[in-house]
Amino acid sequence: MAKRGFKVELYERREDIRKAAIVKGRSINLALSVRGREALRHVGLEDEVVKNGIPMHARMIHNTDGSCNPILYGTKSQFIMSVDRRKLNEVLLEAAEHKYAVKCYFEHKLLQKQMMKETLFDYQQQYIPHGYMELTINPTSENLFAMPANYLHIWPRNEYMMIALPNLDKSFTCTLFMPFEIFNSINTAEEAIQFFKDKFPDSIPLIGAENLKKTYTSSKALPMISIKSSPYHYKDKVVIMGDAAHAIVPFYGQGMNAGFEDCIVLNEFLDLHKNDLEKALAGYSEHRVPDCQAICDLAMYNYIEMRKSVNSRLFLMRKSLDNMLYKIFPSSWVPLYTMVSFTRTRYHECIAKRKWQDEVGSSSTSSIFCLYKVPYLLH
Amino acid sequence: MAKRGFKVELYERREDIRKAAIVKGRSINLALSVRGREALRHVGLEDEVVKNGIPMHARMIHNTDGSCNPILYGTKSQFIMSVDRRKLNEVLLEAAEHKYAVKCYFEHKLLQKQMMKETLFDYQQQYIPHGYMELTINPTSENLFAMPANYLHIWPRNEYMMIALPNLDKSFTCTLFMPFEIFNSINTAEEAIQFFKDKFPDSIPLIGAENLKKTYTSSKALPMISIKSSPYHYKDKVVIMGDAAHAIVPFYGQGMNAGFEDCIVLNEFLDLHKNDLEKALAGYSEHRVPDCQAICDLAMYNYIEMRKSVNSRLFLMRKSLDNMLYKIFPSSWVPLYTMVSFTRTRYHECIAKRKWQDEVGSSSTSSIFCLYKVPYLLH
Repeated sequence: MAKRGFKVELYERREDIRKAAIVKGRSINLALSVRGREALRHVGLEDEVVKNGIPMHARMIHNTDGSCNPILYGTKSQFIMSVDRRKLNEVLLEAAEHKYAVKCYFEHKLLQKQMMKETLFDYQQQYIPHGYMELTINPTSENLFAMPANYLHIWPRNEYMMIALPNLDKSFTCTLFMPFEIFNSINTAEEAIQFFKDKFPDSIPLIGAENLKKTYTSSKALPMISIKSSPYHYKDKVVIMGDAAHAIVPFYGQGMNAGFEDCIVLNEFLDLHKNDLEKALAGYSEHRVPDCQAICDLAMYNYIEMRKSVNSRLFLMRKSLDNMLYKIFPSSWVPLYTMVSFTRTRYHECIAKRKWQDEVGSSSTSSIFCLYKVPYLLH
Repeated sequence: MAKRGFKVELYERREDIRKAAIVKGRSINLALSVRGREALRHVGLEDEVVKNGIPMHARMIHNTDGSCNPILYGTKSQFIMSVDRRKLNEVLLEAAEHKYAVKCYFEHKLLQKQMMKETLFDYQQQYIPHGYMELTINPTSENLFAMPANYLHIWPRNEYMMIALPNLDKSFTCTLFMPFEIFNSINTAEEAIQFFKDKFPDSIPLIGAENLKKTYTSSKALPMISIKSSPYHYKDKVVIMGDAAHAIVPFYGQGMNAGFEDCIVLNEFLDLHKNDLEKALAGYSEHRVPDCQAICDLAMYNYIEMRKSVNSRLFLMRKSLDNMLYKIFPSSWVPLYTMVSFTRTRYHECIAKRKWQDEVGSSSTSSIFCLYKVPYLLH
């Protein structure tokens, strides 16, 4: 907006993250992929963010017996990036203040809820029955990464999972995702260790038994919410974007990317309507609602994929078949994960295309397609 | 609560309806059925409310050619009642203040939204794309009802409809339900009259052409919202009931009835847990959420039935078959409308039982069941 010549004031409910001692209650790192990168490019910040990120080319699956196997995200040259939430915010705020003369006010609350009264505002918030807790894997005594760095590590255990993303300081941030019921059934340090011994044995020496006990007993599992709303605008006065309009669960690594892509889309509608705010906001909202509702659903779905499907031989067969077809038909058979993370295919089209692939596959002779569909996306 | 010995203070956002000049923005009459009556019986008010109500034994369908045909709601002895919103509130408030020593404070707002922050509160609000507008049919010059009184009159026109309920003063309150799009396409008094000539010709002499023009052009179509939430309680501190927990669209005439039944159910849980609020509220919430979500869905569904299905021969055949089976198996084949309006069968069981009827019917030889199911309840 500032780049377009608007005078911009920014009101932020939280304190200035650049001055914060610790950033509480939110994950330390974020997965940056194509949509987020393109938005950063629009404001000339892609390079600076990327140079502070760590590429992750594949999932590294940790089995219960301690063995590991990687699953590529896309082609060998494609990757998502682990970026530091604080560093990213610093880069954005510095640019906003100094490059674009945005005036920033922190610890100021705006009344988003007001929207609900001003217009026929459809709104849905849903907590999932799972919570999350963060743990840390420190660098080794030689100050090296304790696991291979360029992976998103996953310990998929069907009903729950742990993941780990690399940080620039060579630590990993682990996040344990589980039903609150299970969190609540594990109360003492001893129970926590026993649980990890049974389920994530290879992680204990990495996290450290004492560290694990201490973190587990002093932390509380945090909730995750999914929010859908519509429309996103009110006349020429208000537009809600990012988490304010569509908070999603973190399992597709698309929360930030979707929010940043919102900016690209709004920018296009401002171009189209020559800065006529009423038309641009209405156009943006109508265009963007189905896509953001689609990424909400995709993010829900991907939790099942991450914690469960990756353990299934059928899933892996389908994946390799998808990859093969992608090589043969690079423009028409793009795997779902690739569409979401490595292209700017509209999210709702990602779902539609995947359904089409499932249908074509099912009507062909390959039984893999018959068995491995994504009906859960149809909710 | 007062009857149980609690000290009760009542905070009401609106003004005291007993002192209000006009009651704006809400329909004038409500349809009272079994659930509401039973709750009123618990506080000794059933008789007083019923004596001020007008029984409606059947729907009276008004066809475009001006002909009419009734469709019974249940057996000949079963009926719903048109009651006056204001009168009902007066009876309740008088009893609360004078019979049960409840202290009432009007124009005081409580922060329901606070719940959303205090607990993992799932919430969904949805506006339907239809609005409503009220019109009046005055008594005749001989001070008689202008149409047969003991009916809920319906002008079903597939995509929209008008209904009329009788009032004690021998007027009828008509409500026109239509997509906002259609409301917005009819702007002048002349367009309104033309529309009524085409669609509701027999209503024009009843409403009066001038009255119709004046009301249509001076009124605004009002929105309808459907709200689902869960849970309904927060510890032993808060419980939300009625519209605060589950606002529903008006098409099943169950909004008030469901809210009143909430009171019976809470009362039962207070009995069960001997006034232990924490247990009673948790029990109430767990028990009641699926039922109130079911009545939200049923109310949405019944709009389709009222404006569209009643025009279908198939619907009428299914209805008479249901009634026949009901006579043969009075305890196991209760028609859906009867379960909802004339029994206290839990709402979610009403849906389950109807689905079972559909299934049994479909697997039998009767093609009516194969053709007339209620798949729209499965959304």
